[in-house]
Amino acid sequence: MVSSQVVNTYPLSSYTFGTKEPKMEKDTSVADRLARMKVNYMKEGMRTSVEGILLVQEHNHPHILLLQIGNTFCKLPGGRLKPGENEIEGLKRKLTSKLGANSPALVPDWQIGECVAIWWRPNFETIMYPYCPPHITKPKECKKLFLVHLSEREYFAVPKNLKLLAVPLFELYDNVQVWYYSSFPLIMRYGPVISTIPQQLSRFQFKMITN
Amino acid sequence: MVSSQVVNTYPLSSYTFGTKEPKMEKDTSVADRLARMKVNYMKEGMRTSVEGILLVQEHNHPHILLLQIGNTFCKLPGGRLKPGENEIEGLKRKLTSKLGANSPALVPDWQIGECVAIWWRPNFETIMYPYCPPHITKPKECKKLFLVHLSEREYFAVPKNLKLLAVPLFELYDNVQVWYYSSFPLIMRYGPVISTIPQQLSRFQFKMITN
Repeated sequence: MVSSQVVNTYPLSSYTFGTKEPKMEKDTSVADRLARMKVNYMKEGMRTSVEGILLVQEHNHPHILLLQIGNTFCKLPGGRLKPGENEIEGLKRKLTSKLGANSPALVPDWQIGECVAIWWRPNFETIMYPYCPPHITKPKECKKLFLVHLSEREYFAVPKNLKLLAVPLFELYDNVQVWYYSSFPLIMRYGPVISTIPQQLSRFQFKMITN
Repeated sequence: MVSSQVVNTYPLSSYTFGTKEPKMEKDTSVADRLARMKVNYMKEGMRTSVEGILLVQEHNHPHILLLQIGNTFCKLPGGRLKPGENEIEGLKRKLTSKLGANSPALVPDWQIGECVAIWWRPNFETIMYPYCPPHITKPKECKKLFLVHLSEREYFAVPKNLKLLAVPLFELYDNVQVWYYSSFPLIMRYGPVISTIPQQLSRFQFKMITN
């Protein structure tokens, strides 16, 4: 693991992007997903997931790489650990599965940095909290977000059914707020986990390296 | 500076609270405050402020100590550094000014921990961001939040015009969302800096120590 208050970021243009076979979502609905979580919990106990924050820069401002599914939903690259799997090794495996080329020589040598956030799912529901709520003794999921330090040059292979977006911190931050119309939330494009990444990264100094 | 992923927290009941002479706010309005910032900026350049996150526990959940002014506004203990002053020393000075007893022997031996957030004020306005916005070359203020590791026993002297509150993380987090009524924000009790502390602390493991 790498730990530093200074994070080097390189221009988006210094990275190369290709495509690879689709990585389909295992579930086609939120209900299916929660049902599968429940089955897995019965078999393996609390789910632990790990996700990577990959940073690039454009216009002298940090951007985060997000995978877009369909037209709206965005997620960080990552996924569920196998029972007993080491977090760092598991995150590397998931990053390779989501963004690594099929040829091992082209897969980035993932440098996993600091854990910047931990989220808890108390029940088999979509809502997560940045702490384990009081009185919850058996949380259903623990999700950890790690900084991933990219080298100056990398090749990413993006599954054909997904889009890879570089989203500026200021866009994520502006989406923290949910606007209500007759008590229905109108905008929540990134969700609470992704939209508060700017606050969690604020303590780092981003060194923008230009070519 | 102390750095650890594990933070010991002690019950609120293990601390003793007294009072001391009032510490009046320097400004009586937001407009006055912004005007004073402008004058100071002309003399000394960018304002740097430091604030401390002091944690206690109740009911097995972390609580943050906040100073309440009047009936609504809450702030973290801290304040502005003198020009050239070291951040850690300056925060200790400010914590003593806000919460230390008049008798030096009773003042806590402040253990300043990790920087958990940095906020920027681009203009002489109330709005701050968890990054320096693009194209802003001369930010007007940089505010840093630090964990303060409390010992098992401490004595705090609270200025008579202020109240010291222990606010649970779950209350801060529930206040992230702003509810709108005809486009007027209804609830924003803690403001963006304080209300996202739970997300910034999520990476720490709180070890609740009971007596």
